[in-house]
Amino acid sequence: MPDERRPRSVTRADVARYAGVSTAVVSYVLNDGPKAVAPLTRERVLDAVRVLGYRPNAAARALSKGAADMLGLLVNDNRNPFFAELCHALDQASAETGRSLLIVNSDRTQVTTSEQIRDLVSRQIGGLIIADVLTAREQALVESLGIPAVLIGPFGETDGLQSIGVDFCAGTRESTTHLIEHGYRDVAFVGSAARYDDRERGWREALVDARLAPGMLLHVPFSYQGGYDAGTRLADAERRPRAVVAASDQIAIGMLAAFGERGIRVPDDIAIVSFDGTVTADFVWPRLTTAVQPLEQMAAAAVRALLEPSPPGEHHAFPARLRIRESCGCRPGGGE
Amino acid sequence: MPDERRPRSVTRADVARYAGVSTAVVSYVLNDGPKAVAPLTRERVLDAVRVLGYRPNAAARALSKGAADMLGLLVNDNRNPFFAELCHALDQASAETGRSLLIVNSDRTQVTTSEQIRDLVSRQIGGLIIADVLTAREQALVESLGIPAVLIGPFGETDGLQSIGVDFCAGTRESTTHLIEHGYRDVAFVGSAARYDDRERGWREALVDARLAPGMLLHVPFSYQGGYDAGTRLADAERRPRAVVAASDQIAIGMLAAFGERGIRVPDDIAIVSFDGTVTADFVWPRLTTAVQPLEQMAAAAVRALLEPSPPGEHHAFPARLRIRESCGCRPGGGE
Repeated sequence: MPDERRPRSVTRADVARYAGVSTAVVSYVLNDGPKAVAPLTRERVLDAVRVLGYRPNAAARALSKGAADMLGLLVNDNRNPFFAELCHALDQASAETGRSLLIVNSDRTQVTTSEQIRDLVSRQIGGLIIADVLTAREQALVESLGIPAVLIGPFGETDGLQSIGVDFCAGTRESTTHLIEHGYRDVAFVGSAARYDDRERGWREALVDARLAPGMLLHVPFSYQGGYDAGTRLADAERRPRAVVAASDQIAIGMLAAFGERGIRVPDDIAIVSFDGTVTADFVWPRLTTAVQPLEQMAAAAVRALLEPSPPGEHHAFPARLRIRESCGCRPGGGE
Repeated sequence: MPDERRPRSVTRADVARYAGVSTAVVSYVLNDGPKAVAPLTRERVLDAVRVLGYRPNAAARALSKGAADMLGLLVNDNRNPFFAELCHALDQASAETGRSLLIVNSDRTQVTTSEQIRDLVSRQIGGLIIADVLTAREQALVESLGIPAVLIGPFGETDGLQSIGVDFCAGTRESTTHLIEHGYRDVAFVGSAARYDDRERGWREALVDARLAPGMLLHVPFSYQGGYDAGTRLADAERRPRAVVAASDQIAIGMLAAFGERGIRVPDDIAIVSFDGTVTADFVWPRLTTAVQPLEQMAAAAVRALLEPSPPGEHHAFPARLRIRESCGCRPGGGE
């Protein structure tokens, strides 16, 4: 005897019968085409769908649609404004190629990144974009999945995967040099101690080029709080530096808050340049002079790398572009 | 004759044969369990996977795993800091129930929101969270899909779907009253003209309660730029208001930039309260006094609403909580 609690699935034919239309018309309504359906007929079909509780077999549909129309993105934390903008640029770049983008956060405590990757891949994606630092084991997993993958973001190159980034070293060398050209001799750096991060090296090289002594060096997390803490330490330093290079806009904004709280004026008492070029950097006061990462170009390159993969290990670094605003001491529009 | 350009798919059995292990061991390696596999064996299996180009049949896996372990989120623009934090809270709330969250942006120009919804649903999701304003047609589509759905965010209630929000009116009534208690009689409001947004009403009611004349009212987009433009207009007003209620942190931060640029001091020249309680509001100077939306509770309620659905049309509004900082004129820690 059949189990009455589990009725057989409702089919498209049931919907068609209930609505008094052909199954093709049901398809047109549910897929929004290819043929138009009169509004009243459309309403009748949707009513039938509701009444019968029809649910198209999603897996069967996914199989028939093929796996290549959607890309996956694993991102460490979408709240970080830089990554939020990167996600969005990747979404737009995917859309340009007619593909959707499924975004998954990897900073969960409850599940491992490997599980997140496996989950994402099991959802029929045609390629995987990773905006995160992978462990060797996670990277081996990605390589074993047999789908195109690319690493994007501030993580440098890696042997087993293609990667897209920005030339950190040249970017901070240019922004540090800009501060030196303002006449500041005592230039600090606030950034991370991460092995893959070349921003500190760019700062160091610019000081060496200008025959200046190394300035104060602070390592903090990439967050507003990290920047705030650094700002507090700079403010309280015995000899406060005249200028500071921040490794990210978030760090610079946190520093601005610490300086503001203490009545330390930017750029008059201490000048700042930062890195990223996020939208927020343009809406703090003073506005941040910052090395802009060309997110749109980077995102387009990442999507291209999935569709026409390069050899594993190939790294493409885009140049950052210094955008001059007020925090460095310039007066854009009003001369220096 | 078979088409030689399309070889038959590589199977798990092929991988097992090549690696010299059982198919069960291949499963253990690819699924990271349930049994442990010796590192060398594991390496051999991964090598076989790579050499043969084995790709597990994702659709088949999705079918066997069932459709209920992943939730979908449609969000208008993940770059908006409020929505970025909401996304993240929803991701955490999904993780608490052992589910992953697939996030899709709906502000694409290339594809319609309906297509995005259909795409997401075809990826085997067990429920759909919507952080966006839907058209009537999009809402009918969601209702017709036969999967649990919930609307979350600043969009008020809707007849056909469950929804989760915050009590906007009470929130701005409280923050406006706070400004009035500071002694400011001339209190402006900057927000959106959206029909569903009750923040303006809360401001109006507080003024009426205090028998004050309505203040200046500006409608701008919810963005830093919208806030900046409003700040410029307030600054240039013939009679500049003494205080202003901003409908979002983004708007308030844009205003701060406009005021900073013009040397108008906050809160001395003009006091500000805002709405949302995003992280950035705590790292501008002065820090923003803001009505905090309880994102974690809201996110947990949204996920619960998918697992144990309430009747369509049921709306749950959480109270916002006023967080006092410096922008209103208070000196937290130092007395008013």
